[in-house]
Amino acid sequence: MSIPSHPLTLHPRLGASRAFLDALLDRRRPGYSLEAPFYLSDEVFQADMAYIFRRHWIFVGVAPQMPEPGDYITVDIGEDSLLIVRDDDMGLRAFHNVCRHRGSRLCQEHQGSLGHIVCPYHQWTYDLGGRLVHADHMGEAFLREQHGLHKVHLRNLEGLIFVCLADQPPEDFDEVAARMKPYLAPHRLEDCKVAAQVDIIEEGNWKLTLENNRECYHCVANHPELTVSLYEHGFGAQPGPQNADGVARFEDIVKSNHARWQSLGLPSARIEELDSRVSGFRTQRLPLDRAGQSQTLNAEVACRKLLGDFREKSLGGLSFWTQPNSWHHFMSDHVVSFSTLPLDPGRTLVRTLWCVHKDAVEGVDYSVENLTAVWNATNAQDRRLVEATQRGVASPAYQPGPYSPYTEGLVEAFSNWYVTRLRAGLQGDR
Amino acid sequence: MSIPSHPLTLHPRLGASRAFLDALLDRRRPGYSLEAPFYLSDEVFQADMAYIFRRHWIFVGVAPQMPEPGDYITVDIGEDSLLIVRDDDMGLRAFHNVCRHRGSRLCQEHQGSLGHIVCPYHQWTYDLGGRLVHADHMGEAFLREQHGLHKVHLRNLEGLIFVCLADQPPEDFDEVAARMKPYLAPHRLEDCKVAAQVDIIEEGNWKLTLENNRECYHCVANHPELTVSLYEHGFGAQPGPQNADGVARFEDIVKSNHARWQSLGLPSARIEELDSRVSGFRTQRLPLDRAGQSQTLNAEVACRKLLGDFREKSLGGLSFWTQPNSWHHFMSDHVVSFSTLPLDPGRTLVRTLWCVHKDAVEGVDYSVENLTAVWNATNAQDRRLVEATQRGVASPAYQPGPYSPYTEGLVEAFSNWYVTRLRAGLQGDR
Amino acid sequence: MSIPSHPLTLHPRLGASRAFLDALLDRRRPGYSLEAPFYLSDEVFQADMAYIFRRHWIFVGVAPQMPEPGDYITVDIGEDSLLIVRDDDMGLRAFHNVCRHRGSRLCQEHQGSLGHIVCPYHQWTYDLGGRLVHADHMGEAFLREQHGLHKVHLRNLEGLIFVCLADQPPEDFDEVAARMKPYLAPHRLEDCKVAAQVDIIEEGNWKLTLENNRECYHCVANHPELTVSLYEHGFGAQPGPQNADGVARFEDIVKSNHARWQSLGLPSARIEELDSRVSGFRTQRLPLDRAGQSQTLNAEVACRKLLGDFREKSLGGLSFWTQPNSWHHFMSDHVVSFSTLPLDPGRTLVRTLWCVHKDAVEGVDYSVENLTAVWNATNAQDRRLVEATQRGVASPAYQPGPYSPYTEGLVEAFSNWYVTRLRAGLQGDR
Repeated sequence: MSIPSHPLTLHPRLGASRAFLDALLDRRRPGYSLEAPFYLSDEVFQADMAYIFRRHWIFVGVAPQMPEPGDYITVDIGEDSLLIVRDDDMGLRAFHNVCRHRGSRLCQEHQGSLGHIVCPYHQWTYDLGGRLVHADHMGEAFLREQHGLHKVHLRNLEGLIFVCLADQPPEDFDEVAARMKPYLAPHRLEDCKVAAQVDIIEEGNWKLTLENNRECYHCVANHPELTVSLYEHGFGAQPGPQNADGVARFEDIVKSNHARWQSLGLPSARIEELDSRVSGFRTQRLPLDRAGQSQTLNAEVACRKLLGDFREKSLGGLSFWTQPNSWHHFMSDHVVSFSTLPLDPGRTLVRTLWCVHKDAVEGVDYSVENLTAVWNATNAQDRRLVEATQRGVASPAYQPGPYSPYTEGLVEAFSNWYVTRLRAGLQGDR
Repeated sequence: MSIPSHPLTLHPRLGASRAFLDALLDRRRPGYSLEAPFYLSDEVFQADMAYIFRRHWIFVGVAPQMPEPGDYITVDIGEDSLLIVRDDDMGLRAFHNVCRHRGSRLCQEHQGSLGHIVCPYHQWTYDLGGRLVHADHMGEAFLREQHGLHKVHLRNLEGLIFVCLADQPPEDFDEVAARMKPYLAPHRLEDCKVAAQVDIIEEGNWKLTLENNRECYHCVANHPELTVSLYEHGFGAQPGPQNADGVARFEDIVKSNHARWQSLGLPSARIEELDSRVSGFRTQRLPLDRAGQSQTLNAEVACRKLLGDFREKSLGGLSFWTQPNSWHHFMSDHVVSFSTLPLDPGRTLVRTLWCVHKDAVEGVDYSVENLTAVWNATNAQDRRLVEATQRGVASPAYQPGPYSPYTEGLVEAFSNWYVTRLRAGLQGDR
Repeated sequence: MSIPSHPLTLHPRLGASRAFLDALLDRRRPGYSLEAPFYLSDEVFQADMAYIFRRHWIFVGVAPQMPEPGDYITVDIGEDSLLIVRDDDMGLRAFHNVCRHRGSRLCQEHQGSLGHIVCPYHQWTYDLGGRLVHADHMGEAFLREQHGLHKVHLRNLEGLIFVCLADQPPEDFDEVAARMKPYLAPHRLEDCKVAAQVDIIEEGNWKLTLENNRECYHCVANHPELTVSLYEHGFGAQPGPQNADGVARFEDIVKSNHARWQSLGLPSARIEELDSRVSGFRTQRLPLDRAGQSQTLNAEVACRKLLGDFREKSLGGLSFWTQPNSWHHFMSDHVVSFSTLPLDPGRTLVRTLWCVHKDAVEGVDYSVENLTAVWNATNAQDRRLVEATQRGVASPAYQPGPYSPYTEGLVEAFSNWYVTRLRAGLQGDR
């Protein structure tokens, strides 16, 4: 199937943009935050969409959003609107949400259920596999089989749905999936239901959202709810006499918990590949503080019905971060997943999905308010930080500042990955 | 009169835009919808304004909006604000709504009545013919006669008002007027009053609004109110056994009605010149279904007082389409006129005017609700379709699809005309 | 201190913009209003910000906004957010409101009070002199002294605060200050308090706001409240038999008042340097009409407690205009100051500050409503005129019109200064 080139390649200002982007990338100083145009300029945003979001595996949702055949969600990645449908064979399919006649958007809603995909304009009708099965008045010479919906690559990694808009998606995703599967499988996300979904729009560039996600240097002062269950030393600190005891104690706790979890069949060794591969990712399972069970206001489970076959509540938090746009926390009782979708250089959608066991009963086993309290509060706090930074870097006086060598290593890994992938995209297009 | 060149010719990015537009035009594939940049790009929108809307005859309103001397309307065509005034000699005049001193807009309202045209800033005062008659403090050397309002070409075609912003308007309009006059004159629009005006803004490119207007392939599924009076076969269909009888019956009805109308002095032969001249147009008088009298919810007349000297209610609907921006339906009891005015690449004003005999009494002869019901509903439905298509073609996955050879011929004629006129404008400027 | 170059110098479209700006400047016709792109184009706006607002002394507020150590205001000049703080030694300091770590905006509010300047993101902490005094986790090699806040030049001219974003501010400001000091000092603005502050946003280019301020040709027809106290002949008129007596009478009043005020130690001679120096300014002290005391609805003082050591109410109005963005009226009882801050090509913030003696008691010595009535009304009227002109010059039919040689001389002086300074900026950057 041949889809037309991205409009970027048509654009009259392309040549100048390339030189501008090359110069920006060449000036990048490792260990320092990025220059302002990375957060502000239309040229960079177009390149981010073309070379990051249209070339890599993007997390867009979870399988429990579409339990039955005909269930669908729509997701916008930049200018692309995607339609993700559960087919009659229970497989998930992704299509461009665009009619092959005159281009009308097919599904207007965020989610729903349908038998066939019918364009509202002239009733061109597609089946759940994207084949055009009906179109009036098109004449004898018209070939329906050449007018099926344009397909989009999709991978279902233990219930986490990733799509790739490129013709040739990065091949290393299968390896990522193979390595992550043993970590994720025991939580059985496919057997969950969506208990809550909250979308917020941050008035900031998507990379500021990601950078904010990749460090906890800001947590103690900004996230009173999250730090109930997060250990202060879980995300790095400058060593010194004042914290030597605390750090040593924390390392002991990690060690003993890892041993316990491994014995329960839960792999816990950290994998650190954020900037060492195309489909960059990272995982680790960390103990939780206080009651030690879940990311809630009292660190106890939010859902009495545990996931999968779990009988033990204190399984810590298995975190899974993927480049360029997601992070996830899998606990004994629920899974919380975040996707970041850029809207324009200064606006970003952050979608949070909370899943619990599909047999859990709201009001009996869990309450949505308790389940969502920590991350709703944390998201709101992070939004304010992202927005203050977006306003700040818009100042001509902003210049990149140094990352902490102890607490901002994963921010640096994100920037490394981003700069490498953007450069690769630009070079590949020459 | 010399008006400065359009800013487009000053613009630093002009050269690149020209090459971009030429490439787009060269790639156009007949029989297929237009490529996405025609609906999305600023470059195309600037060219549309410069070469389509500032070079051709644009429908802007009806004479009954200004019944008395001093009555005026203002109309925005892109960045141009026009002032259309009924002069003391009852002639209609069009001016740029811009003071010759420091450029203040003269009239801020959409319509009103005035004795002289007085600038709010420093009270420069013009008469209804645009002559500067007063300006304080300008000194002895100042020549008032060199500071009259800039005039705009205007034609009043049986009450339909067209303006042209070009220095040299297309000359073929007089021929269009001569051919249309016998069709329009019997309805005597000049003896009407405006019963209702409704402006809506569609979140779509103006060409999607026009394309939507130029076919009824979408009508059956989308316009339950309009299709009360419109015959299904009036706008084309793929012939086949399932509709052969219906089509033949419809053709008989057209034939017998045409004979009847011609005998009443109402020319009814179709004229098809949408893409064969600079001032492209088309007309046909079609019978109406059901009660057969008017485009209303029951197909009966909406106004008991008929237009002109009519005594017969069943005169069908005389339709008149003009490139690039209008369509009109003249019936025995009322006239409904539509003008499409682009606001930006993704927003378009659609103005609908309903006129009835000037002696008709509201509440006695007609009700505004009944008069406007069909087209208010239809406009709302079309807006949703235009907006879904605007969102759809914004997707990088959109590619032009094939027009139906049976039902979308007038859409193709619109695209042909548009592409031809845009190319002519670009070439003329070299 | 080295701040990175303004993004303008990075921009891919820079070359074309320069040629466009040069052509515009070369075409400028003295004695006529400016061409439309000066009010509309992004290129001009970027140049205005780079070469006018980032190179000259900009009025941003009054010392009474920050009476105590730790009091601060934030002011945005284009993309720059500035933090102006009263230091412990009572001096005023200006900094870029941007953290040196990852660029977060430091203070989000328009004004407030603080002990240290603490970044909300990672708690980097600066003292009131801008020195970084605390930053966690940054390692042994990190040099705090190299990460202080970027400073901005500030001058306090008898309580009027000017800042300059350039590395090398115009040197002639000291001379301006020396010449203005004897005029301003007797009003003792430093001993005042802010009685009211009102911000409005005008939907127009900042230069239209300034041009409106620089003439009173529009006053009689538009400002009924302001012209209670303003003499009609104070701002120029075409001489003729109809106004010869009035003008002569006005000149006598000026002469006798000037003599009286000089004897009270109040210099009153006009200084006219709007377009003859880099830091262009103008001042004059004019008598007021009617009760003759203050710019109020009855021309009587708005505050019973007079400024400084004044015992006489009828001191006229000392006006002080500065290029590019302020004007001020100093009277016996209050000072009213205006700053104009561009937001984008078509939007401008106009901030009005009314100050009275710091010991005046609201409700006893003055009421805010009476104090602010004239200028709130006048600002609203001017906003409508500026907005009508912005809409007008956006028309392609707008062409520059002639200034009145009698009433628009200061508008011409503003345009002269602006064109000269913009050209100097562009040339200096080559």
